[in-house]
Amino acid sequence: MVAPGTGRRGPALSAASTRRTNRQVLLRERPTDRVEDRHFELVERAVPSLGDRQVLVRVCWLAFAPAQRGILNDVPSYVPPVAIGEVMRGTAAGQVVASTHPDYSVGDKVMGTFGWQEYAVLSPDEAVDGLSDIERLPADVDLKVAVNILGTTGMTAYVGMVDLGLPLEGDTVLVTAAAGATGSLAGQIARALGAARVVGTAGSAEKRAWVTEEFGFDECVDHHDPKVFRSLRAAAPNGFDVVFDNVGGSLLDDALANLALRARVVLCGAISTGYMPKRAEVGLRNYQFITTRRATVRGFIVRDHGARFADARADLQRWITEGRLRWNEDIAEGLATAPATLQRLFDGANLGKQLLRVADPLD
Amino acid sequence: MVAPGTGRRGPALSAASTRRTNRQVLLRERPTDRVEDRHFELVERAVPSLGDRQVLVRVCWLAFAPAQRGILNDVPSYVPPVAIGEVMRGTAAGQVVASTHPDYSVGDKVMGTFGWQEYAVLSPDEAVDGLSDIERLPADVDLKVAVNILGTTGMTAYVGMVDLGLPLEGDTVLVTAAAGATGSLAGQIARALGAARVVGTAGSAEKRAWVTEEFGFDECVDHHDPKVFRSLRAAAPNGFDVVFDNVGGSLLDDALANLALRARVVLCGAISTGYMPKRAEVGLRNYQFITTRRATVRGFIVRDHGARFADARADLQRWITEGRLRWNEDIAEGLATAPATLQRLFDGANLGKQLLRVADPLD
Repeated sequence: MVAPGTGRRGPALSAASTRRTNRQVLLRERPTDRVEDRHFELVERAVPSLGDRQVLVRVCWLAFAPAQRGILNDVPSYVPPVAIGEVMRGTAAGQVVASTHPDYSVGDKVMGTFGWQEYAVLSPDEAVDGLSDIERLPADVDLKVAVNILGTTGMTAYVGMVDLGLPLEGDTVLVTAAAGATGSLAGQIARALGAARVVGTAGSAEKRAWVTEEFGFDECVDHHDPKVFRSLRAAAPNGFDVVFDNVGGSLLDDALANLALRARVVLCGAISTGYMPKRAEVGLRNYQFITTRRATVRGFIVRDHGARFADARADLQRWITEGRLRWNEDIAEGLATAPATLQRLFDGANLGKQLLRVADPLD
Repeated sequence: MVAPGTGRRGPALSAASTRRTNRQVLLRERPTDRVEDRHFELVERAVPSLGDRQVLVRVCWLAFAPAQRGILNDVPSYVPPVAIGEVMRGTAAGQVVASTHPDYSVGDKVMGTFGWQEYAVLSPDEAVDGLSDIERLPADVDLKVAVNILGTTGMTAYVGMVDLGLPLEGDTVLVTAAAGATGSLAGQIARALGAARVVGTAGSAEKRAWVTEEFGFDECVDHHDPKVFRSLRAAAPNGFDVVFDNVGGSLLDDALANLALRARVVLCGAISTGYMPKRAEVGLRNYQFITTRRATVRGFIVRDHGARFADARADLQRWITEGRLRWNEDIAEGLATAPATLQRLFDGANLGKQLLRVADPLD
């Protein structure tokens, strides 16, 4: 990453300063393969004055998700790509430090698409697809829990499993990338809904142990094993009623050949593709099982399901209170590490939800 | 096909004879590639006496469908394979010539899974999955229309398009193998439901002309064209809201990259695979569009949807009366040609629904 022109990391921040400096990570060049520092530029800019009905947020936590790799490609998708010179987009949690909006007060905890920067100016009234870029959080919430479980990760796991996977009492469920933030939650949600058997896949012995010991899956299959097809068959001799897929490629293909009748396959992500700007190398050759097993394959983008987020948060918070949900966090430090932190997801390096601490909340 | 031991084709049939001889086509050897005569054996056997509540049917018309190739493979699927030495399974229409069942009388027109033989003994009370192997038809129906439009083909096109494709007013619909019996009906059903634009694919200029001129599709794309992806894009710049697929393979893959938001993809068949006992050569590499376009991919087997058949027949008969449905028939003659007739489907040789006349109805 290219450092600001001063060569310094910028001044220490003070909430009391009237002229705040904002450090921002801008996209400088599109990566074609791995995400590297050189693709980004760290700049210092003055925080602009607030207009009418705006909010200034001090960003405390950034959350990372594989889909962020997709918005670096100059390919039209469900959201426009990040433009060269634009602040890298990302979900975050923080604190209101100034507000001209009547619904937001200094000190409020908030969550939203604040991007890779220290301060974000938001206009809460400007909703896209019915979703605002900022929303207020309960005062007693831990920001790093909120940005994970009550944020995109939790919403994705909830909507994907509850509304699309539809596990019934007694069902056998497969979750790929089960050590991941979304997968680990999805499996626990299936269990909370009454699934009889929850099987995961993960790529290292350490992660597999987590999946069973920490997240309570019945079994976790090694998805690097060339015989993973047989492991899946052995783990569910009668097939999977629900497949919640975060991996794609040959693992998804193997799962298709292990579907139970009337299975629901939820396509949540495809980490095996690296979200690169090219067509998947490995195609699904077992698609005929979709017909013979009368399966339904659903793809979804969580932001379409905003109408469900209030229910999702209520259920997730209840399950947390009841001790039914566990999760892990992997915490990076400092805005400057953001590009390398994103790449960790594709190296399988993160152990738990990948977060980055930008600053601590003021209290 | 191995002829009966006598070397003759069997005696002329007489409905009046009390000891009827039944010619049957039995599976002799499983084909691994093309279906050939040598895989079957033509035998002559006496028609057994009827037991209690049974019906003897004189088979008049056989209907052929690609899925029949699948039941020749020794692979468990949604129905068991045909056993070596068993009469080849297939849907047919015919006439009751003897009955010990109170609901069936001599002369009744019937349809069912009678198989490749001149006479079939049925037990109407023995239903599998709620479906009997025999059902009575209206007295005024043309048997060869019934076995096509009111039989598996019509039910498949109806359930697949009406219940799973769910075309809405104004939608753009793609039907692959649109010159085929199921595809041509499916496209016309989409139109009847209000689709604004119905696009087909077919493999020869003659078939493409049919699809537009006879079946009223707006356009028909050459699915052998290596640039079929571009043709699909040009035919529906905003994507397809519904894809009704009978082909699979690379054509389906190209269709996936041309989905509109919230598209419904109905997997009805996969003629490109030849229904061979091996995994598809060409996998779906564009599966990520299922996610980004929030699509639903449904596979179905028509026999699961028996509860809809009465509605389907009522609608189809109404559309026929209103002159909204057209179809073609390709008629083979004589039971001995059945194996070669089945292979025609995989050679793309049939022009319209492939039927075979076994015998004419009496009077």
